[in-house]
Amino acid sequence: VPDADRFTPRDPDFERRVRENFARQSFMHTLGATLRSVAPGEVAIELVPRAELTQQHGYVHAGVVTSIVDNACGYAALSLMPAGSEVLAVEFKVNLLAPAVGSLLVARARVVRSGRTLTVCQGDVFAHTADGERHVAMMQATIIRMDAASARPEAAGE
Amino acid sequence: VPDADRFTPRDPDFERRVRENFARQSFMHTLGATLRSVAPGEVAIELVPRAELTQQHGYVHAGVVTSIVDNACGYAALSLMPAGSEVLAVEFKVNLLAPAVGSLLVARARVVRSGRTLTVCQGDVFAHTADGERHVAMMQATIIRMDAASARPEAAGE
Amino acid sequence: VPDADRFTPRDPDFERRVRENFARQSFMHTLGATLRSVAPGEVAIELVPRAELTQQHGYVHAGVVTSIVDNACGYAALSLMPAGSEVLAVEFKVNLLAPAVGSLLVARARVVRSGRTLTVCQGDVFAHTADGERHVAMMQATIIRMDAASARPEAAGE
Amino acid sequence: VPDADRFTPRDPDFERRVRENFARQSFMHTLGATLRSVAPGEVAIELVPRAELTQQHGYVHAGVVTSIVDNACGYAALSLMPAGSEVLAVEFKVNLLAPAVGSLLVARARVVRSGRTLTVCQGDVFAHTADGERHVAMMQATIIRMDAASARPEAAGE
Repeated sequence: VPDADRFTPRDPDFERRVRENFARQSFMHTLGATLRSVAPGEVAIELVPRAELTQQHGYVHAGVVTSIVDNACGYAALSLMPAGSEVLAVEFKVNLLAPAVGSLLVARARVVRSGRTLTVCQGDVFAHTADGERHVAMMQATIIRMDAASARPEAAGE
Repeated sequence: VPDADRFTPRDPDFERRVRENFARQSFMHTLGATLRSVAPGEVAIELVPRAELTQQHGYVHAGVVTSIVDNACGYAALSLMPAGSEVLAVEFKVNLLAPAVGSLLVARARVVRSGRTLTVCQGDVFAHTADGERHVAMMQATIIRMDAASARPEAAGE
Repeated sequence: VPDADRFTPRDPDFERRVRENFARQSFMHTLGATLRSVAPGEVAIELVPRAELTQQHGYVHAGVVTSIVDNACGYAALSLMPAGSEVLAVEFKVNLLAPAVGSLLVARARVVRSGRTLTVCQGDVFAHTADGERHVAMMQATIIRMDAASARPEAAGE
Repeated sequence: VPDADRFTPRDPDFERRVRENFARQSFMHTLGATLRSVAPGEVAIELVPRAELTQQHGYVHAGVVTSIVDNACGYAALSLMPAGSEVLAVEFKVNLLAPAVGSLLVARARVVRSGRTLTVCQGDVFAHTADGERHVAMMQATIIRMDAASARPEAAGE
């Protein structure tokens, strides 16, 4: 069954690898984003909104929303790859569905197709509000695998 | 001629309006991004890369790159709208072409189609490197116009 | 509950309206595509692959795959709109996951967010193959509502 | 200079290769689309609108518009690749800007970034109307190179 295969990690140490990689992302620290959960092919990242991250109406900026769901997609992809892999986003598309306001933002991503070179992920961002959970954004993303050893700066997007 | 019309701003005070709106974006201050130029239907935003904005390889995070070109698209759209307009991104798509490294990032956007409700923009991000200007990312975005007076939090994406 | 509301059609005659609209699409006849099911906010379209619809490797052309899932998205959106509405695609994004080969292609779409002006849909295409169902493509689309009475040719994309 | 390199084809026989590949696409024949021009990194495809290709308002269907600009992107990519290469679309995003009506549709695509594995293209569709040329659609697409010899059906999207 393809779906079962898809969620069998090739590296049993996938969670540690994802968490170490996340810890090296300065921008996630700047945003105050944290890894909420790491499962094979599924990652969630959360963020507490604050004034420094807002746009002109006081909502969390679309770029912040994109940043956390882009990362959730990348780490969902990485979780299924063999040890020694690195990931880069090739492209993503985001639909903004509602203002990103609330006490917490959670970005959840899952692998839809895991190929040898390219992985396709689907991600969503939800906001915790007084009225419950609101669907804030959705993403469709393509991620490329690279060998960590040969990861060259000029290879981005390739 | 449609193209000439497209670049005739309906509000002669468009530049002040764009600059005031930009100044209200806390997240742009957090990133250290600045408005480089505002012309009818064309806006450029620049950013000096620094460690707080990087991902795991030391490149500027794709979410930061997206934030400045998303804003450049939004303000390019706003520059052609009548006074009393507000803009929200409906969706955008980004292709990441090369690592965002260098002494300066510049996001340039231009209006491709300016409608009564929806505006479509095309944007690019370039990095200034020792070897010259490198094309780092490209965006295709849809922006919606709202009346500032009636801008309701629940209207995002509508 | 937002999700329940979302799937309550405003026009009880929604299915007839969708089927009549589909019947007016010459291109669907040219492709041999048929409406498989129409539920509130969810539509499926199917197509039997044949040689006239293939690209250079003998797979069904990505443009055909896109055509049926684009239509499934548009009709999912239309199913929730009041009588007298028309729909136009504003934009869509497609990831091609596997070759479109098999005895049948089925495009399924569902409304993710139904706004007054804009509707966002998510769609998938599956191929029936000897090994079971294969996920061939996924789409994220924005659809705009127009009044049928005032639908003007120049309004597309607005 | 990167831009000059970009448009130097690695296979001097690129035009014949593109034209032969196009000729094998049954769906292009079904649509009545023809190759208008093939230059290194730039391809144009044209189509005369007819009733069989229309949607419910009598415009050329968005799926047809997508098909020709998707192909223009793919062949622009192929024109810069070494002999023995095949291309597959990984993903594309289309914004529909105006109704596709007129005496002729022309899809023009150009390579923006040509990598070893992935190529990114930008495409536009214009309609010839009584009032001149109208910008109907724009696309941003990612194309993957495969070796023709090892092109396996299961590799699509990889």
